[in-house]
Amino acid sequence: MNISPLQKARYEYNPKLPAILRGKLTNLSPVSGEPTCPVADADKIKEFCPHTCFLPAVSFVEGKHEGLTRAMTVGVILSGGQAPGGHNVISGLFDGLKALNKDNRLIGFKGGPSGLISDSFIEITEKFLAPYRNTGGFDIIGSGRTKLETEDQFDKCIATCRSHGVNAVVIIGGDDSNTNAAILAEYFIRKNAGIQVIGCPKTIDGDLKNDNIEISFGFDTATKTYSELIGNLERDANSAKKYWHFIKLMGRSASHIALECALQTQPNVTLISEEIEENKTSLSDVVDYIASAVAKRAANGNNFGIVLIPEGLVEFIPEVKALIGELNDLLAKEGNAYSLLSNDKARQEFIASHLSTTSATAFAFLPDGIRKQLLMDRDPHGNVQVSRIETEKLLIELVTQRLADWKKEGKFSGSFNALNHFFGYEGRCAFPSNFDADYCYSLGTNAALLIACGLTGYLSSITNLSAPADQWKAGGIPVTMMMNMEQRHGEQKPVIRKALVDLKDKPFTYFAQHRDTWAVETAYTYPGAIQYYGPAEVCDRPTMTLLLEQGK
Amino acid sequence: MNISPLQKARYEYNPKLPAILRGKLTNLSPVSGEPTCPVADADKIKEFCPHTCFLPAVSFVEGKHEGLTRAMTVGVILSGGQAPGGHNVISGLFDGLKALNKDNRLIGFKGGPSGLISDSFIEITEKFLAPYRNTGGFDIIGSGRTKLETEDQFDKCIATCRSHGVNAVVIIGGDDSNTNAAILAEYFIRKNAGIQVIGCPKTIDGDLKNDNIEISFGFDTATKTYSELIGNLERDANSAKKYWHFIKLMGRSASHIALECALQTQPNVTLISEEIEENKTSLSDVVDYIASAVAKRAANGNNFGIVLIPEGLVEFIPEVKALIGELNDLLAKEGNAYSLLSNDKARQEFIASHLSTTSATAFAFLPDGIRKQLLMDRDPHGNVQVSRIETEKLLIELVTQRLADWKKEGKFSGSFNALNHFFGYEGRCAFPSNFDADYCYSLGTNAALLIACGLTGYLSSITNLSAPADQWKAGGIPVTMMMNMEQRHGEQKPVIRKALVDLKDKPFTYFAQHRDTWAVETAYTYPGAIQYYGPAEVCDRPTMTLLLEQGK
Repeated sequence: MNISPLQKARYEYNPKLPAILRGKLTNLSPVSGEPTCPVADADKIKEFCPHTCFLPAVSFVEGKHEGLTRAMTVGVILSGGQAPGGHNVISGLFDGLKALNKDNRLIGFKGGPSGLISDSFIEITEKFLAPYRNTGGFDIIGSGRTKLETEDQFDKCIATCRSHGVNAVVIIGGDDSNTNAAILAEYFIRKNAGIQVIGCPKTIDGDLKNDNIEISFGFDTATKTYSELIGNLERDANSAKKYWHFIKLMGRSASHIALECALQTQPNVTLISEEIEENKTSLSDVVDYIASAVAKRAANGNNFGIVLIPEGLVEFIPEVKALIGELNDLLAKEGNAYSLLSNDKARQEFIASHLSTTSATAFAFLPDGIRKQLLMDRDPHGNVQVSRIETEKLLIELVTQRLADWKKEGKFSGSFNALNHFFGYEGRCAFPSNFDADYCYSLGTNAALLIACGLTGYLSSITNLSAPADQWKAGGIPVTMMMNMEQRHGEQKPVIRKALVDLKDKPFTYFAQHRDTWAVETAYTYPGAIQYYGPAEVCDRPTMTLLLEQGK
Repeated sequence: MNISPLQKARYEYNPKLPAILRGKLTNLSPVSGEPTCPVADADKIKEFCPHTCFLPAVSFVEGKHEGLTRAMTVGVILSGGQAPGGHNVISGLFDGLKALNKDNRLIGFKGGPSGLISDSFIEITEKFLAPYRNTGGFDIIGSGRTKLETEDQFDKCIATCRSHGVNAVVIIGGDDSNTNAAILAEYFIRKNAGIQVIGCPKTIDGDLKNDNIEISFGFDTATKTYSELIGNLERDANSAKKYWHFIKLMGRSASHIALECALQTQPNVTLISEEIEENKTSLSDVVDYIASAVAKRAANGNNFGIVLIPEGLVEFIPEVKALIGELNDLLAKEGNAYSLLSNDKARQEFIASHLSTTSATAFAFLPDGIRKQLLMDRDPHGNVQVSRIETEKLLIELVTQRLADWKKEGKFSGSFNALNHFFGYEGRCAFPSNFDADYCYSLGTNAALLIACGLTGYLSSITNLSAPADQWKAGGIPVTMMMNMEQRHGEQKPVIRKALVDLKDKPFTYFAQHRDTWAVETAYTYPGAIQYYGPAEVCDRPTMTLLLEQGK
């Protein structure tokens, strides 16, 4: 590894901790609050998680707690997609463990959950850890998408942990991984394995949150990275004055990323999947909405603009969702007859004739290329692959058509030239912002304390995040508190409920109040690159979402 | 405009000037060096530019110079594509003019050269300028691509200038715009218009340079912005360990951007157009080269990597260049017969049968989608549009095929999943790096001095750029010094010769020495986001290209 000047400088950074975690960790004690309750289906959750359901939230105060200094060996895994700050969770965990007892050990299982199952590991030492402090990426031990779900897997985890004398496992992951962490914690209790499980809330998507998990880590850095680029494109659009940039942003389920980026950059159009689903907006209406903004701006002589599109958009448009469902059913049922058809035209006609009227209309509305793509690119189960649809290009094509129609009708007299972008992978491994560097280091330090207190099935929880770091609070909540029952693979299962964009909450309502102005005016804000040094208001500011949620 | 915290903070930044420009500008005097000479075709250039050919380079020293403080009105235009720092050139120019004589005026012509022709203008005042200092974009007065080429246009420029009492015009632009600046300067002399013309070297492509123009402005910021993103993708690839990222980078003619990004990030594969042209590398060999890197890394268990591709690549591959030429000739000649063909297959067969053997082979080698695209998407003159070819996708498709063949032959046993990206517009309007902020402000201040000294047909020249700013040197060179004769629209014309990547110079040779290691090993460097505050080695470092060129 050839170290960049910034990376070298970042090694010197001391992440800021909540005041309570700055002193001697051995002088702390957990305080239990009221019992917690799952977000829904409490009785069912209790059946699946009898030992960890209804447990109280805990917080740390000064005081003495028995056993905090007992020698421990802790395992840690990174699970799922990368998010900036993962290395700092591990740094905080390591430093926290060593502060509690210098003989404590930390073992990293490699390549995600599969490393825990197959016992692929590396012992994390100060020397090994040093070059990863305050850096992006999950490369310290790698990550993976294996799901810890079966009892066979759980038993293998026990065997691995026993062979290393591991007392506790820290799972750094998103909603799925933390759901599995809760189930694993229950299994370990049931089997009397003597192994605790603590989760840390990770995902750039920002959809793992409640009152105690104010934000998942990585959301801050990723949205700032995307907003840097969006701001740069806004400034480019406003300089060249001839392009509309259609920018798709990562985030398949929730539109938090698009919303946060909109709040940071004030683009002309931002689509929010949750609103489109709520309002049952049709694809044609989405196109109308964008085309109207283009036409209004053109009328003012501004033939340029910015459109933000959440990655998962099309799956939230009711008619497209229904179409996809029907297509999958149809291709499963009539696959043989369909496969005998010799050309595109025959195939498309066959499909159209077998769809419901609504879906046939939706199908006909799609551009030819997209129709072909839907029918050809199917996954191993024969299902159409919605994720392959390049939504940003689809919208450009449909808006171009709509504007051409309007031009004929005299309703549009401008020009429309559009470019498309997709920002996702670019933000997952950026150097964590000071916020994420501090937050993650705190989450890790705090996880060490939760383990030392003997807790299991808990998520590390750092709160009051819109205040300066020294005012942050440290504690934990049972994972079950975030759960409800959902249908998975044909069965009702306890899972963490995804926190989608709340159309009644302040971040969205602020956006909704301003978007009509932003659509017509050029009210762009240019955030620029993430700064790690310099004035605090530039370097330490959290996301707009967090500030608005917390009334700031 | 809603101002971001960074933008607010950047208003406070005082760009660093060369020591010689830090004192009283009115205490400076120009010193002429030896007469300069065009890079080639001096006699011809002399015919076109009799007054400005062979003029000496000038530099500034302390001393008194007559007339420096005479009252002046200067016009300025931004020409062509955006580059970070344009606003700082204007800031430096404004401050320089005011330092020479507080009654000096600066008029910005709007929307590029067309603003000068049509007299669309705004007077630049301190108040108007303030919110643009140290920001990216060209939005202060806009830019445009109108070319100042005809005498009719030149006469309109004279009329505009006279109506404002403009003594001099500063043209901030790339090679084409500065070529036109030189011709305009000559015309003004010939017509005794009493209007000077000074150019400033702008282009993110980095292809406008010689010994006196060490780099064009914007190259530093743009390549750092792209390198931030490439580094982030490298770290993502090295964390997830399952994707190859094929990244196309802006720069149609020269590969300086790709080379600089490679030096900053050490990716596995970087294609340099100039080398491919020099070696007459075939498309198939390019594919082989990439596929070999994939196979070697796969043999080590690394099924991931990064490939950098200059935007203009395919036009440098001799066989593709020849194919394009033949296709254009063929479609011009046989367009009627061709247009009567009713389907794709017939069209492709017709084409194949009319091409030379080499071009038919090249055509057959292209994936079907690209062949169709080449034949369908033609420009208004009927020419195929090479720029529409998505080179990054083309290469992914061809490498996928090649690896599938190798798999059958037992020469490849890994997996290959590729994602494509294009970085270009994202970097053109970033907040200028400290280097570009300083350099541009110096270029502008210096331009004010060149005007005050009565010079015309000169480029503002700031040199010794790899040293700290106080050691930079200030002066000017005649534009003619960068010129040679080239065929344009069927005629020999004097134009600035593009500075392509020099395969014998240090930046390329350093890259060539290391690339085999970088191909196989994971030697990624993660530059992170541009920093404006913090340690000087992080914030003020120029590009690797400049450091290597100047032996550092």
